[in-house]
Amino acid sequence: MKILAVDPGYDRLGIAVIDKNGTTKETLLYSDCYTTNPKDTFYTRLHQVSLEVARVIEKYSPDVFAMETLFFTKNQKTALHVAETRGAILYQALNNNLTVYEYTPIAVKIAVTGYGKSDKKQILSMVDKLISINKKIKYDDEYDAIAIGLTCAAIHGRAK
Amino acid sequence: MKILAVDPGYDRLGIAVIDKNGTTKETLLYSDCYTTNPKDTFYTRLHQVSLEVARVIEKYSPDVFAMETLFFTKNQKTALHVAETRGAILYQALNNNLTVYEYTPIAVKIAVTGYGKSDKKQILSMVDKLISINKKIKYDDEYDAIAIGLTCAAIHGRAK
Repeated sequence: MKILAVDPGYDRLGIAVIDKNGTTKETLLYSDCYTTNPKDTFYTRLHQVSLEVARVIEKYSPDVFAMETLFFTKNQKTALHVAETRGAILYQALNNNLTVYEYTPIAVKIAVTGYGKSDKKQILSMVDKLISINKKIKYDDEYDAIAIGLTCAAIHGRAK
Repeated sequence: MKILAVDPGYDRLGIAVIDKNGTTKETLLYSDCYTTNPKDTFYTRLHQVSLEVARVIEKYSPDVFAMETLFFTKNQKTALHVAETRGAILYQALNNNLTVYEYTPIAVKIAVTGYGKSDKKQILSMVDKLISINKKIKYDDEYDAIAIGLTCAAIHGRAK
């Protein structure tokens, strides 16, 4: 099973492709934090982010798509723009026949650290132990995408 | 100028195509209330709605895309799903190089009735006077899409 996982945003998009064949450890095929230019309009940035997801789908042909369930934050305008960006990304996944899974932040914490109240540091530390990352990761969004992908692998990628 | 206007939703999508050539009255080229099956998942419905917008864009080749600015409602889960649907629709507009305009509900009321506090009935009545609709319209969503298209024509489609 090849998993495309994203931490969606119109400013920064965390994106990861993880391979889980059921018997071996998960393999990280690709990860990145794709960024857009704050000087561009929200529309341009939404368009660029969704095209980037389409590009990665075309290159890696994943089977499933995973992202975190969105909850409301204090900044409602940002939340709406993030939701719109999620929708444009979801379209790419659905239009390429990927099965879509969403996980709550607690489900991601439990899957990665075994504990629903783990902090950011604990999650990053466990992600490094669970999967081999042969690069330096600068932004949390990229780590978050990998964590979501590992959650999907743990829940839906069990050995048969 | 050919305007594609939508009242976005994953349950019902109001959609209208209006032609405004600057000298004559606006012409309604197409309008519909596209509905999805409540038994389908949200993902399926989002996908269907955005494909319907893509179909109408391909058929009518509009120049601009108009929709109402989204504000928060009491039901936040619904608002997020509507925002995600908007994002998937926005992608279709952007990917076809349409210029995107958003209008607040008050701007639509002022453009259509000349009064920012007009009620639904006044808007429907004025829409009927402003544009020739040769069909029976069942859902408000379709009327709303036409009203948004007329707003776009009034603001951006003036005679040169």
